[in-house]
Amino acid sequence: MHRYRSHTCAALRKSDTGANVRLSGWVHRVRDHGGVLFIDLRDHYGLTQVVADPDSPAFKIAETVRGEWVIRVDGVVKERMADTINPNLGTGEIEVFAQEIEVLSSAKELPLPVFGEPDYPEDVRLKYRFLDLRRETLHKNIVTRTKVIADMRKRMTEIGFAEYATPILTASSPEGARDFLVPSRIHPGQFYALPQAPQQYKQLLMVAGFDRYFQIAPCFRDEDPRADRLPGEFYQLDLEMSFVTQEDVWDTMEPVMRGVFEEFAEGKPVTQEFRRIPYDEAMRTYGTDKPDLRNPIEMQAVTEHFAGSGFKVFAGMIANNPKVEVWAIPAKTGGSRAFCDRMNSWAQGQGQPGLGYIFWRKEGDNLEGAGPIAKNIGPERTEAIRVQMGLEDGDACFFAAGDPAKFAKFAGDARTRAGEELNLVDQDRFDLCWIVDFPFYEWDEDNKKVEFAHNPFSMPQGGMEALETQDPLTLKAYQYDLVCNGFEIASGSIRNQSPELMVKAFEKVGLTKADVEERFGGLYRAFQYGAPPHGGMAAGVDRVIMLIVGAKNLREVALFPMNQQAQDLLMGAPSPASPAQMRELSLRALPPKAD
Amino acid sequence: MHRYRSHTCAALRKSDTGANVRLSGWVHRVRDHGGVLFIDLRDHYGLTQVVADPDSPAFKIAETVRGEWVIRVDGVVKERMADTINPNLGTGEIEVFAQEIEVLSSAKELPLPVFGEPDYPEDVRLKYRFLDLRRETLHKNIVTRTKVIADMRKRMTEIGFAEYATPILTASSPEGARDFLVPSRIHPGQFYALPQAPQQYKQLLMVAGFDRYFQIAPCFRDEDPRADRLPGEFYQLDLEMSFVTQEDVWDTMEPVMRGVFEEFAEGKPVTQEFRRIPYDEAMRTYGTDKPDLRNPIEMQAVTEHFAGSGFKVFAGMIANNPKVEVWAIPAKTGGSRAFCDRMNSWAQGQGQPGLGYIFWRKEGDNLEGAGPIAKNIGPERTEAIRVQMGLEDGDACFFAAGDPAKFAKFAGDARTRAGEELNLVDQDRFDLCWIVDFPFYEWDEDNKKVEFAHNPFSMPQGGMEALETQDPLTLKAYQYDLVCNGFEIASGSIRNQSPELMVKAFEKVGLTKADVEERFGGLYRAFQYGAPPHGGMAAGVDRVIMLIVGAKNLREVALFPMNQQAQDLLMGAPSPASPAQMRELSLRALPPKAD
Repeated sequence: MHRYRSHTCAALRKSDTGANVRLSGWVHRVRDHGGVLFIDLRDHYGLTQVVADPDSPAFKIAETVRGEWVIRVDGVVKERMADTINPNLGTGEIEVFAQEIEVLSSAKELPLPVFGEPDYPEDVRLKYRFLDLRRETLHKNIVTRTKVIADMRKRMTEIGFAEYATPILTASSPEGARDFLVPSRIHPGQFYALPQAPQQYKQLLMVAGFDRYFQIAPCFRDEDPRADRLPGEFYQLDLEMSFVTQEDVWDTMEPVMRGVFEEFAEGKPVTQEFRRIPYDEAMRTYGTDKPDLRNPIEMQAVTEHFAGSGFKVFAGMIANNPKVEVWAIPAKTGGSRAFCDRMNSWAQGQGQPGLGYIFWRKEGDNLEGAGPIAKNIGPERTEAIRVQMGLEDGDACFFAAGDPAKFAKFAGDARTRAGEELNLVDQDRFDLCWIVDFPFYEWDEDNKKVEFAHNPFSMPQGGMEALETQDPLTLKAYQYDLVCNGFEIASGSIRNQSPELMVKAFEKVGLTKADVEERFGGLYRAFQYGAPPHGGMAAGVDRVIMLIVGAKNLREVALFPMNQQAQDLLMGAPSPASPAQMRELSLRALPPKAD
Repeated sequence: MHRYRSHTCAALRKSDTGANVRLSGWVHRVRDHGGVLFIDLRDHYGLTQVVADPDSPAFKIAETVRGEWVIRVDGVVKERMADTINPNLGTGEIEVFAQEIEVLSSAKELPLPVFGEPDYPEDVRLKYRFLDLRRETLHKNIVTRTKVIADMRKRMTEIGFAEYATPILTASSPEGARDFLVPSRIHPGQFYALPQAPQQYKQLLMVAGFDRYFQIAPCFRDEDPRADRLPGEFYQLDLEMSFVTQEDVWDTMEPVMRGVFEEFAEGKPVTQEFRRIPYDEAMRTYGTDKPDLRNPIEMQAVTEHFAGSGFKVFAGMIANNPKVEVWAIPAKTGGSRAFCDRMNSWAQGQGQPGLGYIFWRKEGDNLEGAGPIAKNIGPERTEAIRVQMGLEDGDACFFAAGDPAKFAKFAGDARTRAGEELNLVDQDRFDLCWIVDFPFYEWDEDNKKVEFAHNPFSMPQGGMEALETQDPLTLKAYQYDLVCNGFEIASGSIRNQSPELMVKAFEKVGLTKADVEERFGGLYRAFQYGAPPHGGMAAGVDRVIMLIVGAKNLREVALFPMNQQAQDLLMGAPSPASPAQMRELSLRALPPKAD
């Protein structure tokens, strides 16, 4: 027989009755039922009930074992009595009568319980992560994580992508966030950087002729702690394709992402055909470029119904500024004064003057709009709004007015709030859509200049002609996001692979050709030697897994995460370097600032 | 039709004759045959011949294109004349008559030719890696690399392993080589380290209950440039298993590694059953723990034949020191004075006094041993040696004498030299074996103390009893290597998972329990809370690929390698940090040493 086990703790069935077996695992729980000891033995695969009765030669040792000890058990499989069968357990029809028990490893008193999974302070959980990971929920999340990533790899490989690992010790790149730096010992005073994303390398791969790249890529950003981001490293499903349009990227990745969600959705519906919503439309309809489409509320402009109306606040704003619009946020089933007042208070809590509303109720046979706004604009305009928004008895509608560029986000938040408060959001669904046609540039109010809205590597729609003739702020990019349930889960673009277009695009934000060469030298040089049209995207692996398992915190889907202070409490990182190491790296630590 | 292509450059066949097609790719070569232009159009998948004749509307543009331009070609597929068919090309039976050509990207004068692949200086190749990677050999190597890694993943997954990515920003670990450090911005004066290997994390995973782990793991060592190692990062197929003996690890990984080699060996034979050679036996038989088994030479001790013989040098050494042995290196077909003298000169070039030999030749019907040694020890002893070593007419035997601990390496080199010089080594074969039972400790002559021979995490054979009672230098470890064609391609062990054993093992090298806690705190702590018996190994991915493709240099199988000075010439790394970055990291660079 094998030294440690003939079966895993999930393997035994009724058909094994009578077999002599050997199991190894952790003592999940010990119960004493009138002198007979019941040990739930746990391993990676499952749980088996071990019985040690006082006649057994194993009893003496069984009496000593405690939770989380590792033991080997030799015994005989017996069928359970009908009334002790556990239908929730694969091995629930049998138990193993122990004949011999060997303690492979004992355990000190546990700083963190494994059985039962009560809430426990984060710092203890991270310091004893090896115990925390034994807890059922976290163990299951991590197993799902490995399966999701393996599934992504399988799907990408099946459709002709190959995985290329790009360098982790690379050059500092002036895009986006802050780099982690790595001092070079051989070149004193110089530093490598860890990649924020393999963006430049994957584009270089296309220029090198590799056509279909993907990578489950570790990415590194030295950002200040944020609740929705793990400090340090995170993973992307990164991909790039040559000789493609943006439609090719969507058509390629939609089945992959849908497939991944469907594979792990446990029956929850997943969007079959992803809508492609232009950025402008998303902002007007949902007040965000990350709409949660499970929320059925869709906003509309109702400016005309307020222009020249008796509701002087809105009417005056509209008259004074052609940019002003009034947006309606319809709220089915929200038609009570109590709910409308709650929404109004919430809006004031958000720093808004308030949130105007109308709600409809039956007065006899009449459907009547109630509330101050309805009174001010009169029944005809009220009815016109109701008809436009498709509302009925018992529904409400909220209004936001002003320059949409300024209030869109608040309107979107109000839409989310109303949907959640009214339970209009179907929690058990994965709703995916593409947001497309992002603006190429945006106005940087602080510096009073045009800036790249997103990715300077993206191709502007209309190419050189548009760059030369159009108002930069009206330019769209071949740039797109994939959104699921209100979270951006992927982002991508068709790249600007023309050196001339690249220089022109940077000119508009006040940078010269020399700046381009200095900042993106490797890529800019490569584009001069035959660069194919190419594009791609990157999906946030951690975020996708979080959505799939329904976790509220990224640490619930990560293996060995750091805490919010970017410390690894298990391994004790970061830690001071030795004087010898500092000397080798030609570095000196500055004394802490006195403040 | 698709914007860029209806087919790849490898897709068209005779059956496509007459079809209107669209191709995109790089201009591999342009030839002018009496006014008709032939363009070899290349993409990731293959090559298609495009023809532009002077009547074609595409001719004007075809005349302008140069090597490595990216073009789109619309045209008609035509069958080639019988005498122009290229049987070496998948598309060799057809050509595409161009009707329209669009230049998608032109190319400046090339710093590095793609067509023809002449030798080129390494620095140019690395700076223009995106061009270098277009060259057929390198492109093919990298494609094979991605396939080998995908195949490893597939095989590991199929046998029940799951891939877990372990942290890259982690703690400095005092094992083996030098760490790359990453300064923490949030914790001034403190540093993360990049992992030299995921050793501690994978063991923690076992303690956390995950049973079967693998990872294509990036590893980082800040070592001085060495010809057989890439600066910076490299990849390991890393794995770990719980509740296993070393035989389980061998039985699990042997089919995986054999399978990977067979999959990519292109018909070359691969060892079907890997021999398990104890370290001591390997040293005595091959003079190395990395034997190239394609070399049929096996050494044997022939001390008895020299003891008390007329060859006074050896006889005297044997008489004076019981440690002294004489090893015979048999050299089939090496039986000429010229060859034996060449070997002798080589040995002297290696700093040895010489290399004694006997060679055998027929004198009439007699088989006679020739050379000074044969003369000195006489025909009987000479014949005894011949019989023991299984040598014949035309063969030779070389001799090394002294303390085997001191001459074994030289004897191994002589074995290699003789095998190669005599063409006894079958180049077209993958010969794999396990080297097992490595010593646990070794004598550190410099510090006059016992040291760990390899991995302090390994389990000593015999456990606590052996540690307490045996001479440490006779202890073996459950530690093993996998060797292929003379290269160590993997290394592993059963781990010491007992806190008490760990402390005892470190005691022998002069370290205290406090030292263990300080150096391997995370792991040592984990072992106190129920640690399963576990073991595993790590295989060098880059080395395996190098063997498979037959490359001589690691840079021929790496995507974006650094040069020997640890610089990325393509991206320009490392580079100075900005003063703002240095301030954020609370670091100051020391002025360069004046020397």
